[in-house]
Amino acid sequence: MKIIGEKINGTRKRIASAIVERDAAYIKDLAVKQVEAGAIWLDVNAGTHPAQEPDDLVWLIETIQSVVDIPLSLDSANPAALQVAIQAVNKTPMINSISGEPDRLEKILPIVAEHGCEVIALAMDDKKIPETTEKRLEIIAKIIAATRAAHVPDEKVYVDPLVMTIATANQSAVVAYETIRAVHEQYPAVHFTMGLSNISFGLPARKQINRAFLIMAMQNGLDSAILDPLDKELMAAILTTNLLLGRDKHCLNYIRGSRKGLFE
Amino acid sequence: MKIIGEKINGTRKRIASAIVERDAAYIKDLAVKQVEAGAIWLDVNAGTHPAQEPDDLVWLIETIQSVVDIPLSLDSANPAALQVAIQAVNKTPMINSISGEPDRLEKILPIVAEHGCEVIALAMDDKKIPETTEKRLEIIAKIIAATRAAHVPDEKVYVDPLVMTIATANQSAVVAYETIRAVHEQYPAVHFTMGLSNISFGLPARKQINRAFLIMAMQNGLDSAILDPLDKELMAAILTTNLLLGRDKHCLNYIRGSRKGLFE
Repeated sequence: MKIIGEKINGTRKRIASAIVERDAAYIKDLAVKQVEAGAIWLDVNAGTHPAQEPDDLVWLIETIQSVVDIPLSLDSANPAALQVAIQAVNKTPMINSISGEPDRLEKILPIVAEHGCEVIALAMDDKKIPETTEKRLEIIAKIIAATRAAHVPDEKVYVDPLVMTIATANQSAVVAYETIRAVHEQYPAVHFTMGLSNISFGLPARKQINRAFLIMAMQNGLDSAILDPLDKELMAAILTTNLLLGRDKHCLNYIRGSRKGLFE
Repeated sequence: MKIIGEKINGTRKRIASAIVERDAAYIKDLAVKQVEAGAIWLDVNAGTHPAQEPDDLVWLIETIQSVVDIPLSLDSANPAALQVAIQAVNKTPMINSISGEPDRLEKILPIVAEHGCEVIALAMDDKKIPETTEKRLEIIAKIIAATRAAHVPDEKVYVDPLVMTIATANQSAVVAYETIRAVHEQYPAVHFTMGLSNISFGLPARKQINRAFLIMAMQNGLDSAILDPLDKELMAAILTTNLLLGRDKHCLNYIRGSRKGLFE
Protein backbone atom coordinates (compact mmCIF):
# COMPACT_ATOMS: atom_id res chain seq x y z
CA MET A 1 0.00 0.00 0.00
CA LYS A 2 1.72 3.14 -1.24
CA ILE A 3 0.64 6.20 0.70
CA ILE A 4 0.37 9.67 -0.81
CA GLY A 5 0.39 12.14 2.09
CA GLU A 6 -2.50 14.56 1.62
CA LYS A 7 -1.83 17.20 4.23
CA ILE A 8 -0.05 19.91 2.21
CA ASN A 9 -3.13 21.16 0.44
CA GLY A 10 -3.86 24.86 0.05
CA THR A 11 -7.60 24.32 -0.18
CA ARG A 12 -7.36 23.86 3.59
CA LYS A 13 -7.49 27.10 5.52
CA ARG A 14 -4.46 26.52 7.74
CA ILE A 15 -2.29 25.58 4.76
CA ALA A 16 -3.59 28.49 2.69
CA SER A 17 -2.44 30.94 5.35
CA ALA A 18 0.92 29.18 5.67
CA ILE A 19 1.35 29.68 1.91
CA VAL A 20 0.37 33.36 2.01
CA GLU A 21 2.65 34.02 4.97
CA ARG A 22 5.46 31.86 3.60
CA ASP A 23 5.44 29.96 6.90
CA ALA A 24 8.12 27.46 5.92
CA ALA A 25 8.41 25.96 9.39
CA TYR A 26 4.78 24.83 9.33
CA ILE A 27 5.08 23.22 5.90
CA LYS A 28 8.40 21.55 6.76
CA ASP A 29 6.94 20.08 9.89
CA LEU A 30 4.03 18.57 7.94
CA ALA A 31 6.41 17.18 5.35
CA VAL A 32 8.69 15.51 7.89
CA LYS A 33 5.83 14.09 9.93
CA GLN A 34 4.08 12.58 6.92
CA VAL A 35 7.27 10.92 5.68
CA GLU A 36 8.05 9.57 9.14
CA ALA A 37 4.53 8.16 9.30
CA GLY A 38 4.99 6.22 6.06
CA ALA A 39 4.14 8.46 3.08
CA ILE A 40 5.90 7.41 -0.16
CA TRP A 41 4.82 10.56 -2.02
CA LEU A 42 3.75 13.93 -0.65
CA ASP A 43 0.86 15.57 -2.44
CA VAL A 44 1.43 19.29 -3.01
CA ASN A 45 -1.56 21.46 -3.82
CA ALA A 46 -1.16 25.23 -3.70
CA GLY A 47 -4.89 25.82 -4.06
CA THR A 48 -4.29 29.38 -5.21
CA HIS A 49 -5.58 31.15 -8.33
CA PRO A 50 -3.83 30.21 -11.60
CA ALA A 51 -1.70 33.35 -11.85
CA GLN A 52 -0.31 32.87 -8.35
CA GLU A 53 -0.11 29.08 -8.46
CA PRO A 54 3.30 28.60 -10.16
CA ASP A 55 5.11 30.75 -7.56
CA ASP A 56 3.32 29.17 -4.64
CA LEU A 57 3.88 25.65 -5.93
CA VAL A 58 7.60 26.27 -6.41
CA TRP A 59 7.87 27.75 -2.93
CA LEU A 60 6.09 24.70 -1.48
CA ILE A 61 8.30 22.30 -3.43
CA GLU A 62 11.53 23.98 -2.36
CA THR A 63 10.38 24.21 1.23
CA ILE A 64 9.43 20.52 1.32
CA GLN A 65 12.57 19.38 -0.47
CA SER A 66 14.74 21.22 2.04
CA VAL A 67 13.74 18.66 4.68
CA VAL A 68 12.63 15.44 2.98
CA ASP A 69 13.90 13.38 0.11
CA ILE A 70 10.84 11.65 -1.39
CA PRO A 71 9.05 12.32 -4.68
CA LEU A 72 6.12 14.70 -4.74
CA SER A 73 2.66 14.41 -6.21
CA LEU A 74 2.03 17.67 -8.06
CA ASP A 75 -1.65 18.29 -7.50
CA SER A 76 -2.86 20.80 -10.07
CA ALA A 77 -5.08 20.98 -13.12
CA ASN A 78 -3.08 23.96 -14.37
CA PRO A 79 -0.55 23.03 -17.10
CA ALA A 80 1.37 26.30 -16.68
CA ALA A 81 1.86 25.65 -12.97
CA LEU A 82 2.88 22.05 -13.64
CA GLN A 83 5.41 23.15 -16.29
CA VAL A 84 7.13 25.42 -13.79
CA ALA A 85 6.82 23.02 -10.87
CA ILE A 86 8.38 20.15 -12.73
CA GLN A 87 11.56 22.18 -13.15
CA ALA A 88 11.77 22.64 -9.38
CA VAL A 89 11.50 19.00 -8.25
CA ASN A 90 14.52 16.88 -7.28
CA LYS A 91 12.84 13.57 -8.05
CA THR A 92 10.48 12.55 -10.84
CA PRO A 93 7.06 13.48 -9.47
CA MET A 94 3.63 11.98 -9.76
CA ILE A 95 1.14 14.21 -11.59
CA ASN A 96 -2.26 14.55 -9.91
CA SER A 97 -4.15 14.39 -12.27
CA ILE A 98 -5.44 13.74 -15.75
CA SER A 99 -9.02 12.76 -16.62
CA GLY A 100 -11.08 12.03 -19.70
CA GLU A 101 -11.56 15.77 -20.18
CA PRO A 102 -9.94 16.33 -23.62
CA ASP A 103 -8.38 19.68 -22.77
CA ARG A 104 -6.73 18.38 -19.60
CA LEU A 105 -5.55 15.25 -21.34
CA GLU A 106 -4.09 17.24 -24.21
CA LYS A 107 -2.19 19.71 -22.05
CA ILE A 108 -1.09 17.60 -19.09
CA LEU A 109 -0.37 14.22 -20.66
CA PRO A 110 2.62 15.56 -22.68
CA ILE A 111 4.22 16.75 -19.43
CA VAL A 112 3.73 13.30 -17.90
CA ALA A 113 5.17 11.59 -20.97
CA GLU A 114 8.15 13.90 -21.36
CA HIS A 115 9.29 13.59 -17.76
CA GLY A 116 8.46 9.92 -17.19
CA CYS A 117 6.03 10.76 -14.37
CA GLU A 118 3.55 8.59 -12.59
CA VAL A 119 0.06 9.97 -13.16
CA ILE A 120 -3.32 9.78 -11.45
CA ALA A 121 -6.17 9.20 -13.92
CA LEU A 122 -9.63 10.20 -12.77
CA ALA A 123 -12.57 8.14 -14.03
CA MET A 124 -14.52 11.19 -15.19
CA ASP A 125 -14.73 13.56 -18.12
CA ASP A 126 -15.98 17.15 -18.46
CA LYS A 127 -16.18 17.43 -14.70
CA LYS A 128 -19.02 14.95 -14.35
CA ILE A 129 -18.56 11.81 -12.25
CA PRO A 130 -20.45 9.00 -13.98
CA GLU A 131 -22.73 6.96 -11.78
CA THR A 132 -22.18 3.51 -13.24
CA THR A 133 -19.17 1.23 -13.39
CA GLU A 134 -19.64 0.77 -17.14
CA LYS A 135 -19.41 4.47 -17.88
CA ARG A 136 -16.31 4.83 -15.69
CA LEU A 137 -14.70 1.93 -17.48
CA GLU A 138 -15.38 3.60 -20.84
CA ILE A 139 -13.63 6.75 -19.70
CA ILE A 140 -10.69 4.85 -18.26
CA ALA A 141 -10.35 2.94 -21.54
CA LYS A 142 -10.18 6.25 -23.39
CA ILE A 143 -7.57 7.63 -20.99
CA ILE A 144 -5.41 4.52 -21.17
CA ALA A 145 -5.60 4.56 -24.95
CA ALA A 146 -4.18 8.09 -24.70
CA THR A 147 -1.46 7.27 -22.15
CA ARG A 148 -0.38 4.28 -24.24
CA ALA A 149 -0.32 6.44 -27.38
CA ALA A 150 1.94 8.85 -25.46
CA HIS A 151 4.20 5.91 -24.47
CA VAL A 152 3.37 6.19 -20.78
CA PRO A 153 3.63 2.62 -19.49
CA ASP A 154 0.50 1.23 -17.78
CA GLU A 155 2.40 0.70 -14.51
CA LYS A 156 2.84 4.47 -14.18
CA VAL A 157 -0.92 5.04 -14.31
CA TYR A 158 -2.86 5.22 -11.04
CA VAL A 159 -6.58 5.03 -11.71
CA ASP A 160 -8.80 6.87 -9.24
CA PRO A 161 -12.25 5.24 -9.52
CA LEU A 162 -13.78 8.34 -7.85
CA VAL A 163 -16.11 8.08 -4.95
CA MET A 164 -19.27 10.01 -4.24
CA THR A 165 -20.76 10.22 -0.77
CA ILE A 166 -22.80 7.24 0.22
CA ALA A 167 -25.25 9.63 1.90
CA THR A 168 -26.77 10.39 -1.50
CA ALA A 169 -25.58 7.44 -3.61
CA ASN A 170 -26.29 4.14 -1.94
CA GLN A 171 -24.06 2.11 -4.24
CA SER A 172 -21.10 4.47 -4.40
CA ALA A 173 -18.66 2.23 -2.52
CA VAL A 174 -19.82 -0.82 -4.47
CA VAL A 175 -19.34 1.06 -7.76
CA ALA A 176 -15.83 2.12 -6.74
CA TYR A 177 -14.91 -1.47 -5.86
CA GLU A 178 -16.41 -2.81 -9.08
CA THR A 179 -14.51 -0.20 -11.07
CA ILE A 180 -11.21 -1.24 -9.48
CA ARG A 181 -11.83 -4.92 -10.18
CA ALA A 182 -12.98 -4.31 -13.75
CA VAL A 183 -10.05 -2.01 -14.62
CA HIS A 184 -7.62 -4.47 -13.05
CA GLU A 185 -9.01 -7.29 -15.14
CA GLN A 186 -8.57 -5.32 -18.35
CA TYR A 187 -5.33 -3.53 -17.45
CA PRO A 188 -3.47 -5.74 -14.97
CA ALA A 189 -0.40 -3.46 -14.78
CA VAL A 190 -2.38 -0.36 -13.83
CA HIS A 191 -2.36 0.81 -10.20
CA PHE A 192 -5.16 2.37 -8.18
CA THR A 193 -5.41 5.24 -5.78
CA MET A 194 -8.09 7.41 -4.26
CA GLY A 195 -9.03 9.83 -1.57
CA LEU A 196 -11.04 8.30 1.24
CA SER A 197 -13.05 11.09 2.70
CA ASN A 198 -15.68 11.80 0.01
CA ILE A 199 -17.43 8.53 0.77
CA SER A 200 -18.55 9.74 4.21
CA PHE A 201 -19.46 13.34 3.37
CA GLY A 202 -22.55 14.48 5.26
CA LEU A 203 -22.61 11.53 7.67
CA PRO A 204 -21.65 11.22 11.33
CA ALA A 205 -18.56 9.33 12.54
CA ARG A 206 -16.86 9.81 9.19
CA LYS A 207 -13.58 8.14 10.20
CA GLN A 208 -15.48 4.96 10.91
CA ILE A 209 -16.78 4.93 7.33
CA ASN A 210 -13.50 5.97 5.73
CA ARG A 211 -11.64 3.20 7.51
CA ALA A 212 -14.05 0.38 6.57
CA PHE A 213 -14.17 1.76 3.04
CA LEU A 214 -10.38 1.56 2.83
CA ILE A 215 -10.24 -1.99 4.23
CA MET A 216 -12.65 -3.32 1.61
CA ALA A 217 -11.06 -1.25 -1.15
CA MET A 218 -7.70 -2.89 -0.38
CA GLN A 219 -9.34 -6.28 -0.68
CA ASN A 220 -10.63 -5.24 -4.09
CA GLY A 221 -7.17 -4.24 -5.27
CA LEU A 222 -6.56 -0.66 -4.14
CA ASP A 223 -2.77 -0.45 -3.83
CA SER A 224 -2.30 3.24 -3.07
CA ALA A 225 -4.31 5.96 -1.34
CA ILE A 226 -4.23 9.69 -0.80
CA LEU A 227 -4.68 10.04 2.91
CA ASP A 228 -3.50 11.56 6.14
CA PRO A 229 -0.65 9.33 7.30
CA LEU A 230 -0.85 10.99 10.73
CA ASP A 231 -4.26 9.38 11.19
CA LYS A 232 -3.22 6.48 13.41
CA GLU A 233 -6.48 4.60 13.03
CA LEU A 234 -6.23 4.64 9.27
CA MET A 235 -2.60 3.53 9.30
CA ALA A 236 -3.48 0.79 11.79
CA ALA A 237 -6.25 -0.37 9.46
CA ILE A 238 -3.78 -0.62 6.58
CA LEU A 239 -1.34 -2.74 8.60
CA THR A 240 -4.19 -4.96 9.78
CA THR A 241 -5.64 -5.41 6.30
CA ASN A 242 -2.23 -6.30 4.88
CA LEU A 243 -1.88 -8.83 7.67
CA LEU A 244 -5.27 -10.40 6.94
CA LEU A 245 -4.66 -10.50 3.21
CA GLY A 246 -1.57 -12.64 3.85
CA ARG A 247 0.90 -9.92 2.88
CA ASP A 248 2.73 -9.59 6.18
CA LYS A 249 5.15 -12.45 6.62
CA HIS A 250 5.46 -13.57 10.24
CA CYS A 251 3.21 -10.59 11.12
CA LEU A 252 6.36 -8.47 11.37
CA ASN A 253 4.91 -5.17 10.16
CA TYR A 254 1.83 -5.61 12.30
CA ILE A 255 3.86 -6.33 15.42
CA ARG A 256 6.20 -3.45 14.65
CA GLY A 257 3.18 -1.14 14.30
CA SER A 258 1.89 -2.35 17.64
CA ARG A 259 5.26 -1.66 19.31
CA LYS A 260 5.23 1.84 17.86
CA GLY A 261 1.89 2.44 19.59
CA LEU A 262 -0.19 2.55 16.43
CA PHE A 263 -3.05 0.61 17.98
CA GLU A 264 -3.36 2.63 21.19
CA MET B 1 -26.13 -9.72 9.38
CA LYS B 2 -27.67 -12.08 11.91
CA ILE B 3 -25.90 -11.98 15.23
CA ILE B 4 -25.52 -14.96 17.53
CA GLY B 5 -24.69 -13.61 20.98
CA GLU B 6 -21.69 -15.51 22.34
CA LYS B 7 -21.51 -14.40 25.95
CA ILE B 8 -23.32 -17.23 27.75
CA ASN B 9 -20.53 -19.75 27.46
CA GLY B 10 -19.50 -21.93 30.36
CA THR B 11 -15.95 -22.32 29.07
CA ARG B 12 -15.48 -18.79 30.41
CA LYS B 13 -14.60 -18.65 34.07
CA ARG B 14 -17.17 -16.08 35.14
CA ILE B 15 -20.00 -17.96 33.40
CA ALA B 16 -18.79 -21.30 34.78
CA SER B 17 -19.11 -20.01 38.32
CA ALA B 18 -22.53 -18.48 37.57
CA ILE B 19 -23.63 -21.95 36.42
CA VAL B 20 -22.22 -23.72 39.49
CA GLU B 21 -23.77 -21.19 41.84
CA ARG B 22 -27.03 -21.01 39.87
CA ASP B 23 -26.59 -17.25 39.71
CA ALA B 24 -29.67 -16.59 37.60
CA ALA B 25 -29.44 -12.80 37.89
CA TYR B 26 -26.07 -12.75 36.17
CA ILE B 27 -27.21 -14.96 33.29
CA LYS B 28 -30.47 -13.03 32.86
CA ASP B 29 -28.59 -9.77 32.69
CA LEU B 30 -26.32 -11.11 29.94
CA ALA B 31 -29.33 -12.43 28.02
CA VAL B 32 -31.22 -9.14 28.15
CA LYS B 33 -28.20 -7.02 27.27
CA GLN B 34 -27.28 -9.15 24.26
CA VAL B 35 -30.80 -9.06 22.88
CA GLU B 36 -31.04 -5.30 23.40
CA ALA B 37 -27.75 -4.93 21.54
CA GLY B 38 -29.07 -6.78 18.51
CA ALA B 39 -28.57 -10.54 18.95
CA ILE B 40 -31.03 -12.67 16.93
CA TRP B 41 -29.99 -15.90 18.64
CA LEU B 42 -28.28 -16.45 21.98
CA ASP B 43 -25.63 -19.12 22.05
CA VAL B 44 -25.87 -21.31 25.16
CA ASN B 45 -22.88 -23.40 26.12
CA ALA B 46 -22.81 -25.04 29.54
CA GLY B 47 -19.19 -26.08 29.17
CA THR B 48 -19.58 -28.71 31.88
CA HIS B 49 -18.72 -32.41 31.76
CA PRO B 50 -21.16 -34.63 29.85
CA ALA B 51 -22.92 -36.08 32.88
CA GLN B 52 -23.66 -32.62 34.29
CA GLU B 53 -24.31 -30.90 30.96
CA PRO B 54 -28.01 -31.74 30.47
CA ASP B 55 -29.01 -30.29 33.86
CA ASP B 56 -26.88 -27.19 33.43
CA LEU B 57 -28.09 -26.58 29.88
CA VAL B 58 -31.73 -26.85 30.92
CA TRP B 59 -31.16 -24.46 33.84
CA LEU B 60 -29.49 -21.98 31.48
CA ILE B 61 -32.29 -22.28 28.94
CA GLU B 62 -35.02 -21.76 31.51
CA THR B 63 -33.18 -18.86 33.07
CA ILE B 64 -32.67 -17.15 29.72
CA GLN B 65 -36.21 -17.80 28.55
CA SER B 66 -37.61 -16.22 31.69
CA VAL B 67 -36.41 -12.83 30.45
CA VAL B 68 -36.05 -12.91 26.65
CA ASP B 69 -38.08 -14.30 23.82
CA ILE B 70 -35.59 -15.15 21.05
CA PRO B 71 -34.42 -18.55 19.82
CA LEU B 72 -31.30 -20.09 21.29
CA SER B 73 -28.27 -21.64 19.72
CA LEU B 74 -27.65 -24.86 21.61
CA ASP B 75 -23.89 -25.13 21.69
CA SER B 76 -22.91 -28.68 22.50
CA ALA B 77 -21.34 -31.72 20.87
CA ASN B 78 -23.18 -34.00 23.31
CA PRO B 79 -26.26 -35.62 21.75
CA ALA B 80 -27.68 -36.58 25.16
CA ALA B 81 -27.53 -32.96 26.35
CA LEU B 82 -29.07 -31.72 23.10
CA GLN B 83 -31.92 -34.25 23.37
CA VAL B 84 -32.83 -32.94 26.80
CA ALA B 85 -32.23 -29.29 25.94
CA ILE B 86 -34.46 -29.36 22.91
CA GLN B 87 -37.40 -30.32 25.12
CA ALA B 88 -36.80 -27.22 27.24
CA VAL B 89 -36.74 -24.54 24.53
CA ASN B 90 -39.73 -22.33 23.69
CA LYS B 91 -38.61 -21.65 20.13
CA THR B 92 -37.01 -23.88 17.54
CA PRO B 93 -33.30 -23.54 18.29
CA MET B 94 -30.19 -23.49 16.19
CA ILE B 95 -27.88 -26.42 16.84
CA ASN B 96 -24.19 -25.55 17.22
CA SER B 97 -22.84 -27.75 15.65
CA ILE B 98 -22.34 -30.64 13.29
CA SER B 99 -19.15 -31.36 11.36
CA GLY B 100 -17.82 -33.94 8.95
CA GLU B 101 -17.02 -36.19 11.91
CA PRO B 102 -19.19 -39.26 11.18
CA ASP B 103 -20.16 -39.93 14.78
CA ARG B 104 -21.30 -36.34 15.39
CA LEU B 105 -23.17 -36.23 12.09
CA GLU B 106 -24.91 -39.51 12.84
CA LYS B 107 -26.05 -38.58 16.32
CA ILE B 108 -26.79 -34.86 16.01
CA LEU B 109 -28.19 -34.53 12.50
CA PRO B 110 -31.33 -36.59 13.34
CA ILE B 111 -32.13 -34.11 16.15
CA VAL B 112 -31.75 -31.20 13.71
CA ALA B 113 -33.95 -32.89 11.13
CA GLU B 114 -36.65 -33.98 13.56
CA HIS B 115 -37.08 -30.54 15.12
CA GLY B 116 -36.58 -28.40 12.01
CA CYS B 117 -33.58 -26.64 13.53
CA GLU B 118 -31.06 -24.38 11.94
CA VAL B 119 -27.62 -25.92 12.22
CA ILE B 120 -24.02 -24.74 12.15
CA ALA B 121 -21.81 -26.98 10.00
CA LEU B 122 -18.07 -26.85 10.72
CA ALA B 123 -15.71 -27.33 7.78
CA MET B 124 -13.68 -30.02 9.56
CA ASP B 125 -13.79 -33.73 10.31
CA ASP B 126 -12.22 -35.86 13.02
CA LYS B 127 -11.27 -32.72 14.93
CA LYS B 128 -8.71 -31.57 12.37
CA ILE B 129 -9.12 -28.21 10.65
CA PRO B 130 -7.95 -28.63 7.06
CA GLU B 131 -5.50 -26.03 5.81
CA THR B 132 -6.73 -25.61 2.25
CA THR B 133 -9.95 -24.30 0.77
CA GLU B 134 -10.28 -27.42 -1.40
CA LYS B 135 -10.23 -29.79 1.55
CA ARG B 136 -12.76 -27.66 3.44
CA LEU B 137 -15.03 -27.69 0.43
CA GLU B 138 -14.84 -31.47 0.24
CA ILE B 139 -15.94 -31.76 3.85
CA ILE B 140 -18.75 -29.25 3.38
CA ALA B 141 -19.95 -31.18 0.33
CA LYS B 142 -20.07 -34.33 2.43
CA ILE B 143 -22.00 -32.57 5.20
CA ILE B 144 -24.50 -31.00 2.81
CA ALA B 145 -25.05 -34.35 1.14
CA ALA B 146 -25.97 -35.63 4.60
CA THR B 147 -28.22 -32.68 5.55
CA ARG B 148 -30.02 -32.98 2.22
CA ALA B 149 -30.44 -36.72 2.70
CA ALA B 150 -31.99 -35.92 6.10
CA HIS B 151 -34.34 -33.40 4.42
CA VAL B 152 -32.78 -30.41 6.15
CA PRO B 153 -33.17 -27.55 3.64
CA ASP B 154 -29.96 -25.77 2.62
CA GLU B 155 -31.23 -22.45 3.99
CA LYS B 156 -31.16 -23.89 7.51
CA VAL B 157 -27.46 -24.72 7.21
CA TYR B 158 -24.91 -22.17 8.47
CA VAL B 159 -21.43 -23.12 7.27
CA ASP B 160 -18.58 -22.10 9.54
CA PRO B 161 -15.46 -21.99 7.34
CA LEU B 162 -13.30 -22.16 10.49
CA VAL B 163 -10.49 -19.79 11.12
CA MET B 164 -7.05 -20.44 12.49
CA THR B 165 -4.88 -17.72 13.95
CA ILE B 166 -3.04 -15.66 11.39
CA ALA B 167 -0.06 -15.63 13.76
CA THR B 168 0.86 -19.12 12.59
CA ALA B 169 -1.07 -19.43 9.30
CA ASN B 170 -0.43 -16.48 7.03
CA GLN B 171 -3.30 -17.29 4.67
CA SER B 172 -5.94 -18.18 7.24
CA ALA B 173 -8.21 -15.21 6.58
CA VAL B 174 -7.80 -15.61 2.83
CA VAL B 175 -8.69 -19.31 3.09
CA ALA B 176 -11.79 -18.50 5.16
CA TYR B 177 -12.92 -15.92 2.59
CA GLU B 178 -12.25 -18.30 -0.31
CA THR B 179 -14.19 -21.04 1.45
CA ILE B 180 -17.21 -18.76 1.89
CA ARG B 181 -17.18 -17.72 -1.76
CA ALA B 182 -16.69 -21.25 -3.04
CA VAL B 183 -19.44 -22.76 -0.86
CA HIS B 184 -21.78 -19.92 -1.82
CA GLU B 185 -21.18 -20.58 -5.49
CA GLN B 186 -22.00 -24.26 -5.12
CA TYR B 187 -24.77 -23.93 -2.54
CA PRO B 188 -26.36 -20.50 -2.98
CA ALA B 189 -29.05 -21.04 -0.31
CA VAL B 190 -26.58 -21.92 2.44
CA HIS B 191 -25.74 -19.29 5.08
CA PHE B 192 -22.44 -18.60 6.80
CA THR B 193 -21.39 -17.90 10.33
CA MET B 194 -18.23 -17.90 12.37
CA GLY B 195 -16.51 -16.83 15.53
CA LEU B 196 -14.18 -13.88 15.03
CA SER B 197 -11.61 -14.17 17.75
CA ASN B 198 -9.50 -17.15 16.65
CA ILE B 199 -8.02 -15.14 13.80
CA SER B 200 -6.12 -12.85 16.18
CA PHE B 201 -4.97 -15.39 18.76
CA GLY B 202 -1.46 -14.65 19.99
CA LEU B 203 -1.26 -11.16 18.48
CA PRO B 204 -1.52 -7.68 20.03
CA ALA B 205 -4.52 -5.37 19.52
CA ARG B 206 -6.78 -8.33 18.78
CA LYS B 207 -9.95 -6.27 18.42
CA GLN B 208 -8.35 -4.36 15.57
CA ILE B 209 -7.77 -7.64 13.70
CA ASN B 210 -11.16 -9.13 14.54
CA ARG B 211 -12.95 -6.04 13.26
CA ALA B 212 -11.11 -5.82 9.92
CA PHE B 213 -11.53 -9.58 9.53
CA LEU B 214 -15.29 -9.22 9.99
CA ILE B 215 -15.56 -6.31 7.55
CA MET B 216 -13.87 -8.24 4.74
CA ALA B 217 -15.73 -11.45 5.63
CA MET B 218 -19.05 -9.60 5.19
CA GLN B 219 -17.91 -8.46 1.79
CA ASN B 220 -17.19 -12.09 0.92
CA GLY B 221 -20.67 -13.18 1.94
CA LEU B 222 -20.62 -13.81 5.68
CA ASP B 223 -24.22 -13.19 6.74
CA SER B 224 -24.11 -14.20 10.39
CA ALA B 225 -21.50 -14.23 13.14
CA ILE B 226 -21.04 -15.53 16.65
CA LEU B 227 -19.84 -12.50 18.55
CA ASP B 228 -20.18 -10.25 21.55
CA PRO B 229 -22.99 -7.83 20.68
CA LEU B 230 -21.92 -5.66 23.62
CA ASP B 231 -18.68 -4.90 21.76
CA LYS B 232 -19.60 -1.47 20.42
CA GLU B 233 -16.72 -1.29 17.96
CA LEU B 234 -17.71 -4.58 16.38
CA MET B 235 -21.37 -3.57 16.13
CA ALA B 236 -20.34 -0.22 14.66
CA ALA B 237 -18.23 -2.03 12.06
CA ILE B 238 -21.24 -4.15 11.06
CA LEU B 239 -23.46 -1.08 10.58
CA THR B 240 -20.72 0.65 8.62
CA THR B 241 -20.05 -2.33 6.39
CA ASN B 242 -23.74 -2.76 5.64
CA LEU B 243 -23.85 0.93 4.75
CA LEU B 244 -20.87 0.62 2.40
CA LEU B 245 -22.20 -2.54 0.78
CA GLY B 246 -25.33 -0.60 -0.21
CA ARG B 247 -27.61 -2.44 2.22
CA ASP B 248 -28.72 0.50 4.34
CA LYS B 249 -31.32 2.52 2.50
CA HIS B 250 -31.05 6.25 3.21
CA CYS B 251 -28.33 5.35 5.76
CA LEU B 252 -31.09 4.92 8.34
CA ASN B 253 -29.52 2.15 10.38
CA TYR B 254 -26.17 3.87 10.36
CA ILE B 255 -27.63 7.17 11.53
CA ARG B 256 -29.72 5.39 14.16
CA GLY B 257 -26.55 3.67 15.42
CA SER B 258 -24.80 6.99 15.59
CA ARG B 259 -27.66 8.51 17.62
CA LYS B 260 -27.50 5.56 20.01
CA GLY B 261 -23.84 6.44 20.65
CA LEU B 262 -22.42 3.37 18.94
CA PHE B 263 -19.56 5.32 17.37
CA GLU B 264 -18.38 7.13 20.49
